[in-house]
Amino acid sequence: MVRCLPSFASRSLSWNVNKNQIKMNRKILMMFAVIATAISIHAQNIELPSPQKNGGLPINQALAERHSEREFNPDKTISLQTVSDLLWATCGINRVESGMRTNPTARNFQEIDAYWFDSTGVYLYDFKENALIQKAEGDYRNLVAGTSQFKQDFVIEAPASIVLVSDTAKAGLTCALIDAGIACENINLFCTGNGLATVPRMTMDVNGIQQLLSLPETSLPVLNNPVGYAK
Amino acid sequence: MVRCLPSFASRSLSWNVNKNQIKMNRKILMMFAVIATAISIHAQNIELPSPQKNGGLPINQALAERHSEREFNPDKTISLQTVSDLLWATCGINRVESGMRTNPTARNFQEIDAYWFDSTGVYLYDFKENALIQKAEGDYRNLVAGTSQFKQDFVIEAPASIVLVSDTAKAGLTCALIDAGIACENINLFCTGNGLATVPRMTMDVNGIQQLLSLPETSLPVLNNPVGYAK
Repeated sequence: MVRCLPSFASRSLSWNVNKNQIKMNRKILMMFAVIATAISIHAQNIELPSPQKNGGLPINQALAERHSEREFNPDKTISLQTVSDLLWATCGINRVESGMRTNPTARNFQEIDAYWFDSTGVYLYDFKENALIQKAEGDYRNLVAGTSQFKQDFVIEAPASIVLVSDTAKAGLTCALIDAGIACENINLFCTGNGLATVPRMTMDVNGIQQLLSLPETSLPVLNNPVGYAK
Repeated sequence: MVRCLPSFASRSLSWNVNKNQIKMNRKILMMFAVIATAISIHAQNIELPSPQKNGGLPINQALAERHSEREFNPDKTISLQTVSDLLWATCGINRVESGMRTNPTARNFQEIDAYWFDSTGVYLYDFKENALIQKAEGDYRNLVAGTSQFKQDFVIEAPASIVLVSDTAKAGLTCALIDAGIACENINLFCTGNGLATVPRMTMDVNGIQQLLSLPETSLPVLNNPVGYAK
């Protein structure tokens, strides 16, 4: 479940002129400001429908048809059900009893996080709660497209991009890179098998994304996949 | 097609006592020795049946059922058809017209090679000719199992292993690692979707494999997958 709002968020303030009370009320106001921010952030979290774990092309046919697609239809959005299926395919839990994932990782480090960039914001895929946790409000797909030095405009035509962030502090750089590749192929094959278009990319504004999401230097955006429907 | 034997391989020698002729005959003998070696090597190459590009579990179900398997039935071998299907799934051509592969690589470097280790030898998967090119005769699965410092015996129980070798001179280390991960997930999902068992591993005798296969230091065995049938 997405985290619930604190139960005291709807309490009202009583205004008084007593100095001590003013100080106290300032503290209460500060507290409410923090709570209000929390409400604002939590209000943008998105609970996803349960992922569909059946369907798609037979795996051998998905392998036969896999290819990179760089021309997206900007008007064809992705349904919430498909977002859920796609992110689950990327790095969701496929064994509830052990918490193991669709994407194998070295020594089960589970160091790969998937971030969803669309026109409304940037969200962390909460694989445990099957939800999108908003980390930034607004359209930051331009950071996925690249930097001022090199940018690929087709990325912004795609309704969304998945950015794979590897925690190198947890797994070391070598494993973190390999494991990002593994999760990326889940995206590629899921997309081919379910009528979506995608292309794996390394180009992006790595520093810009780290700053936007307040990631430490050890959390490395390794790969991204614009996703959508072919033109 | 597997490379054919040179057409002059069956010519016979005429023996003479003339010194110049002896020198000449020595040269011819040397040439025949080289040809004989070539015959010996080529005789062990294996032409694979055409890969089956249909079938297997639906992709979403393959993702749901993917898991690492470390207990292999040593008596259940893999048919040549399945070897062909599996290696094609790993890094075969899926678009004949362009030579593009099942496994995407950064900037289409195509720097990933798959080697097949079984009880008879070590073979390079020739993705263009759909064949196994023998690179060593004999059972070297112990090099995949690990080193004297750390070895996992279950690897030798599996009838074969695929070793993914990345050409870092072609693609750089970062891409070479990521792209090995991508090809590895093709193996994992193909196996799950086609009733085979596998586990992705980094442990192996990297130097031993490089020496055995006469690989330069820049050709890096990055990952391996023992493959077979679960016990």
